[in-house]
Amino acid sequence: MTRAIHMLNGPNLNRLGKREPEIYGRTTLVEIEAMCRHAAGDDTIVFRQTNYEGQLVEWIHEATDQEVAGIVINPAGLTFSSIPLLDALKMFKGPVIELHISNIHRREPIYHRSLVSPVATAVIAGLGARGYPTAIRALREILDDAAAG
Amino acid sequence: MTRAIHMLNGPNLNRLGKREPEIYGRTTLVEIEAMCRHAAGDDTIVFRQTNYEGQLVEWIHEATDQEVAGIVINPAGLTFSSIPLLDALKMFKGPVIELHISNIHRREPIYHRSLVSPVATAVIAGLGARGYPTAIRALREILDDAAAG
Amino acid sequence: MTRAIHMLNGPNLNRLGKREPEIYGRTTLVEIEAMCRHAAGDDTIVFRQTNYEGQLVEWIHEATDQEVAGIVINPAGLTFSSIPLLDALKMFKGPVIELHISNIHRREPIYHRSLVSPVATAVIAGLGARGYPTAIRALREILDDAAAG
Amino acid sequence: MTRAIHMLNGPNLNRLGKREPEIYGRTTLVEIEAMCRHAAGDDTIVFRQTNYEGQLVEWIHEATDQEVAGIVINPAGLTFSSIPLLDALKMFKGPVIELHISNIHRREPIYHRSLVSPVATAVIAGLGARGYPTAIRALREILDDAAAG
Amino acid sequence: MTRAIHMLNGPNLNRLGKREPEIYGRTTLVEIEAMCRHAAGDDTIVFRQTNYEGQLVEWIHEATDQEVAGIVINPAGLTFSSIPLLDALKMFKGPVIELHISNIHRREPIYHRSLVSPVATAVIAGLGARGYPTAIRALREILDDAAAG
Amino acid sequence: MTRAIHMLNGPNLNRLGKREPEIYGRTTLVEIEAMCRHAAGDDTIVFRQTNYEGQLVEWIHEATDQEVAGIVINPAGLTFSSIPLLDALKMFKGPVIELHISNIHRREPIYHRSLVSPVATAVIAGLGARGYPTAIRALREILDDAAAG
Amino acid sequence: MTRAIHMLNGPNLNRLGKREPEIYGRTTLVEIEAMCRHAAGDDTIVFRQTNYEGQLVEWIHEATDQEVAGIVINPAGLTFSSIPLLDALKMFKGPVIELHISNIHRREPIYHRSLVSPVATAVIAGLGARGYPTAIRALREILDDAAAG
Amino acid sequence: MTRAIHMLNGPNLNRLGKREPEIYGRTTLVEIEAMCRHAAGDDTIVFRQTNYEGQLVEWIHEATDQEVAGIVINPAGLTFSSIPLLDALKMFKGPVIELHISNIHRREPIYHRSLVSPVATAVIAGLGARGYPTAIRALREILDDAAAG
Amino acid sequence: MTRAIHMLNGPNLNRLGKREPEIYGRTTLVEIEAMCRHAAGDDTIVFRQTNYEGQLVEWIHEATDQEVAGIVINPAGLTFSSIPLLDALKMFKGPVIELHISNIHRREPIYHRSLVSPVATAVIAGLGARGYPTAIRALREILDDAAAG
Amino acid sequence: MTRAIHMLNGPNLNRLGKREPEIYGRTTLVEIEAMCRHAAGDDTIVFRQTNYEGQLVEWIHEATDQEVAGIVINPAGLTFSSIPLLDALKMFKGPVIELHISNIHRREPIYHRSLVSPVATAVIAGLGARGYPTAIRALREILDDAAAG
Amino acid sequence: MTRAIHMLNGPNLNRLGKREPEIYGRTTLVEIEAMCRHAAGDDTIVFRQTNYEGQLVEWIHEATDQEVAGIVINPAGLTFSSIPLLDALKMFKGPVIELHISNIHRREPIYHRSLVSPVATAVIAGLGARGYPTAIRALREILDDAAAG
Amino acid sequence: MTRAIHMLNGPNLNRLGKREPEIYGRTTLVEIEAMCRHAAGDDTIVFRQTNYEGQLVEWIHEATDQEVAGIVINPAGLTFSSIPLLDALKMFKGPVIELHISNIHRREPIYHRSLVSPVATAVIAGLGARGYPTAIRALREILDDAAAG
Repeated sequence: MTRAIHMLNGPNLNRLGKREPEIYGRTTLVEIEAMCRHAAGDDTIVFRQTNYEGQLVEWIHEATDQEVAGIVINPAGLTFSSIPLLDALKMFKGPVIELHISNIHRREPIYHRSLVSPVATAVIAGLGARGYPTAIRALREILDDAAAG
Repeated sequence: MTRAIHMLNGPNLNRLGKREPEIYGRTTLVEIEAMCRHAAGDDTIVFRQTNYEGQLVEWIHEATDQEVAGIVINPAGLTFSSIPLLDALKMFKGPVIELHISNIHRREPIYHRSLVSPVATAVIAGLGARGYPTAIRALREILDDAAAG
Repeated sequence: MTRAIHMLNGPNLNRLGKREPEIYGRTTLVEIEAMCRHAAGDDTIVFRQTNYEGQLVEWIHEATDQEVAGIVINPAGLTFSSIPLLDALKMFKGPVIELHISNIHRREPIYHRSLVSPVATAVIAGLGARGYPTAIRALREILDDAAAG
Repeated sequence: MTRAIHMLNGPNLNRLGKREPEIYGRTTLVEIEAMCRHAAGDDTIVFRQTNYEGQLVEWIHEATDQEVAGIVINPAGLTFSSIPLLDALKMFKGPVIELHISNIHRREPIYHRSLVSPVATAVIAGLGARGYPTAIRALREILDDAAAG
Repeated sequence: MTRAIHMLNGPNLNRLGKREPEIYGRTTLVEIEAMCRHAAGDDTIVFRQTNYEGQLVEWIHEATDQEVAGIVINPAGLTFSSIPLLDALKMFKGPVIELHISNIHRREPIYHRSLVSPVATAVIAGLGARGYPTAIRALREILDDAAAG
Repeated sequence: MTRAIHMLNGPNLNRLGKREPEIYGRTTLVEIEAMCRHAAGDDTIVFRQTNYEGQLVEWIHEATDQEVAGIVINPAGLTFSSIPLLDALKMFKGPVIELHISNIHRREPIYHRSLVSPVATAVIAGLGARGYPTAIRALREILDDAAAG
Repeated sequence: MTRAIHMLNGPNLNRLGKREPEIYGRTTLVEIEAMCRHAAGDDTIVFRQTNYEGQLVEWIHEATDQEVAGIVINPAGLTFSSIPLLDALKMFKGPVIELHISNIHRREPIYHRSLVSPVATAVIAGLGARGYPTAIRALREILDDAAAG
Repeated sequence: MTRAIHMLNGPNLNRLGKREPEIYGRTTLVEIEAMCRHAAGDDTIVFRQTNYEGQLVEWIHEATDQEVAGIVINPAGLTFSSIPLLDALKMFKGPVIELHISNIHRREPIYHRSLVSPVATAVIAGLGARGYPTAIRALREILDDAAAG
Repeated sequence: MTRAIHMLNGPNLNRLGKREPEIYGRTTLVEIEAMCRHAAGDDTIVFRQTNYEGQLVEWIHEATDQEVAGIVINPAGLTFSSIPLLDALKMFKGPVIELHISNIHRREPIYHRSLVSPVATAVIAGLGARGYPTAIRALREILDDAAAG
Repeated sequence: MTRAIHMLNGPNLNRLGKREPEIYGRTTLVEIEAMCRHAAGDDTIVFRQTNYEGQLVEWIHEATDQEVAGIVINPAGLTFSSIPLLDALKMFKGPVIELHISNIHRREPIYHRSLVSPVATAVIAGLGARGYPTAIRALREILDDAAAG
Repeated sequence: MTRAIHMLNGPNLNRLGKREPEIYGRTTLVEIEAMCRHAAGDDTIVFRQTNYEGQLVEWIHEATDQEVAGIVINPAGLTFSSIPLLDALKMFKGPVIELHISNIHRREPIYHRSLVSPVATAVIAGLGARGYPTAIRALREILDDAAAG
Repeated sequence: MTRAIHMLNGPNLNRLGKREPEIYGRTTLVEIEAMCRHAAGDDTIVFRQTNYEGQLVEWIHEATDQEVAGIVINPAGLTFSSIPLLDALKMFKGPVIELHISNIHRREPIYHRSLVSPVATAVIAGLGARGYPTAIRALREILDDAAAG
């Protein structure tokens, strides 16, 4: 049976490949989406990006209502300031992997304290664009374990 | 003469009844709206919810332009992070009651410091869904006093 | 069946009506007591004030021993410094409503952090003298719910 | 040759002239836009306002894609809380002037620490509505220097 | 016409002359009372000491009700922890001189921040037992000025 | 020769056995007093409890005047907020053992920083009701050593 | 009628053009003075620099006594540490523009908190040497407005 | 049946009797070991000291594997800095008494916050060398209670 | 050609499977080592554990001298307190992946701030025992990229 | 025998009577000097004011060399920022009275923490211009006591 | 070829030998100057002291203009509060040795954080008067290395 | 008579010459040892390095037992985290010079606060490898003075 995984991206990530490439690399979000679909195997990927906090909150509501299998989320700049995002993720029952392209702990202090980490199942940071398929694979293993478990 | 009261709700409150019921209870926002209308007596209630900070700001602008009698606002997660919301409320001339379903001081520290309280007329927190009609009634009394006073 | 509600007032509240009326209003504590009795309907109100922390602690012990239905407490200046008060309230099994006449969050920082809120069922602040009957009514609704529930 | 300057305004600035006139003055945003166009001389002004963080982020993306000459931005309340805004401005290669109508340092502490200043080329605050044409003129001088230099 | 000055002393000051004489000196509170009466000339001194915060609060109420000319207060250890004391002093309309026998700034940090100073007219610290008549004389000059003024 | 040991208890300890038994156990203060007298052997125990800070201060004065051999004190909630208590204990020349029934470091942060510890000879916390006779025995050994020494 | 504007410069600014040119640029203070005089039009510029806090304080006294029209001040390193400077500026009745060559918020934290900003009419930072004539022009507009009234 | 109690000592405690005797006294660790064995009655004492954090961690592992009855630990300087020690103690199922020879709260601030206390059953500090047999006796009582329990 | 990857484990990890299984799971370190070798494919794994900070430092020196391809390190409790570990990792030229079994951001504050993250290439936390093979695979991809790159 | 008392005044005090009269009153420094000379009786007053920290330091050196009887110092704005002043006062062997015209604790936080208080014998604040003769008289009493003592 | 070394001394150092000899020793600044000249060998020493921050800043300007070989500076009390001094030292291209007679880290916290250290080449503290020739010799070695290197 | 000086080196210093040479230089520890022996003249040098905190503690014990003349210690990364090291150094009666190759105040904040400095006689930082012989010479002068003195 196919499972649905929602892969949600926050502000400015539509600029990947163009934005500060020394930090974020040269892979675009379209290329990343393809990597994710490949890593997902039989599972379905819903891959989205928005610059609006409200939109991100509503996509999490949607994932909650549809009881999708899991969420991988890269909240970008909202990671550090959005409590509505935190509140929305608390409602989702499945596993959540928080993903960052760069190792946020090597950047300026304003990027060090994630509000999302305390409600995430796991955190992956610093693997560049490859962090995306790694997160998908890790989420699938968690889901396999739970199904087996 | 009938007066208009705007009851504004912030992010995730459309999930009431489903979201963390041990904190927020099992009453839905639709049921709460009915409770509010009942408590409002002859006064008119405009009851709204949004997950977008920008929308909430514009609804406060609208209330200011229409010179509505008063606002009851539950800004939810934006309570703790939105300065645009604070700025918008400063423009409204009538009484503002800040409402929280849970007693925010019993929760994690990130929920303790409201940015909105310093511009609110009054604060009510921890009464559960019943806090809504309580706030409506308290606001009506304030308006009665001002009319009488 | 009549229920007993203890309404406890802390230091300086015997001065209401005379003390900083621009903050606390012109209603006296005697007038407030009458408002409370009126709002209590069939329930019995025990209405007390003291300037001694030790006395307040012992009144809470008494309410605990008598298993009164609920407590409304305005701890005044002790709100921000008394851990014995916090310890005593933890022992009381019924609902506790913490009440402040002014919106403490609009005052100097020394008045912002209540030690009592984390053990209160609900918090009401900024409604002036009217906060007292509002608190009584809210407490009665909570008791009704629990009895019905 | 004409150059494009984007003048971006954040939440609540559509209320200028009505909002707290003792702080922000009585000039409206429409009047300010006229002042800006006059100060811009041969250069083109794109003048915009929004109450949505996401919209502001996307307008900066647009300015980046069109390689406009420079940005003057008054992020209003988002100045102090929006990391997505900071992230978006980092991508823009041209000069950025951060503008505030009031002297934010004379206001409450919550308005003291701009997240945007560390990525701005210059900061102008406290000149009232006149700060707008001053910022346009200053930006044009910076652009002239760069063209000459 | 004779004026009344209330000289109020807080916890442990009944031990003066015995308590840590290297900090507080060897003069007893009875000897200090005599010094105060001598310095008061035609004015009447009400000289009191208590170890109870509640008692100190009520003496300030009494001074407020009697509209005494002024208060000199040495709150001792309550200086640094009692908000009820601060609240009570705010109600008193006449001048208040806060007095400390030792220079509190030369002691441990826990004794550095007085809660009372922001509501005192003047502060005198470090003059030993002589600080008492100095405070009485200073208060009388303030009263003379106000009467003349 | 018999020696006198004063065992002083602060606010809410008269509730032992009833108050939060999962933290404080089920032994009552009367039972504890008996345990103390047994552990005291030939020495005399003066065993007291009060909910008033002022009373506790005056009992320490009394112990100082009578030059009793030593003090064991459980200041309960006053441990964390009372500077008058700290000042009073500084005057006592003999050994002072600070006692807590629970291990205060395992509780909420508000219970972590004792104001009394810096003037205590020793601190015992977390042994439950048995901490009382343990403290008495430890104090007696200290007194024996000093007498021998 | 000609107006007098005092342009005051603090420590190390006599080194402009030589000092850390990557931060402060290559324009010398003599060149800046010429730019200021040109921008001043009919108004008179008194242009001064000193490395002594005391001298700067006395020049502000002088400007106050002469009731000059306005002050532009670049306090340099004293911006962040001199309370006497702050005290002196409080006495001056006319408008004060605080000027910094670099955007101080982009530098080390020690340069972030200006003591002067809370008493300045406006703040301009980061425009390089051009900030000087910009400040003069802005001050003249403020003076024109006040005269027009 | 004999029970095993492990008494573990951290860095520098092999110097007891020589190290800062005004703080730690003149009793050596060998003498203390004898006191412990005497206080242990029928129970077996394993008494160890090391200057290596890793060794202390492994001794706690050993105690965990052997399921010894209880641990008394004086972690000395590691009390305030070792998270591996904290992690190791969390694994031990039996009671743990944290012991300090001096009253750490009377020393410099760096010695005030124990990392170990939150996982200890009880804390004893300031009884000098006598704290060791006191801790053994207290641990034995806890074990007796649990066995009786 | 085969590459060497050093997988280093810090204090208490030899207890995996026994230590707080609700946090760390039931897989033992021996089982994890097998999972790592399987994930490593053609690459060689050197898999080690120690409870000594000094040993961990020297193993990093050894990896540096041998110029191994990459390091995966789970520093356990030393993550939060060891600056020597941080210093040693700075010397290693290849990629370093910091690994934690649990999501450290969901635990007590003492476990939130990693000293190692600022020198790691990437961070993976919260995937349980599966984090180990995930880290190995991610490191191999980084090495493949660099070889290809 | 006549004694010399040095009365030293810091920055901006030459403006007394003109500077913020609602805080500092309308008495000029010349009038204050006359009040001091009158209060000094047989003792000689050296009365000085400077806006330079260096000058103030050297006057304290001079007082130290001449072994004058005592110093009364109003360091004005340097109170809160000058460590050289603190260092200089430490060298002076006689009594030092720190004087402030206003009650500094009623002002903004930047004026709350005096660097000088820890080396002063006594502190007097908030008595207005009358604080000067009060300080002279208090210093003379201290000197009389020491001479008698 | 002879090189010039500027040895600059800040406030109160003209008092050496008289000032707090238990901290600063009994050697005078004149004796220290002789020690420096002896240690300088062929190099020229310019040895100066001032109590004025402005003077110290200008001497550093002079050293910068003359391109002297190096600076040894003991900024005394200005170490901890002078940003103009920090700014001036940043302009000097040669090596700077910061010198303190006492070990500032053993003193009160106000003396712990040097503003100068981040721009010094090296720091020497606690060697007493001998620190001066040690600093001269160390500076000469640095200069020799640079000349050789 | 020959004196013994122990020169102790902490973690990672065995890597000198290889480790971050832009910070620590290219001289190896073997070369430094030779420089130390040369600087020691007739005195004996015991020169040691370890990566284990426990070993460093025991070497200080050994130096204490042998009553060696003095210690020069470079604790490297343990400088900032080891309280056992601090405790061990307190026991040593002779002079201790704390040495750092780099100027730690120019590095990241985590390297700014030495735990060792408050117990060191003197501190030398930033002289590179030459700091070693400088420290030896300085220690010898201190010993000569003490012998002479």
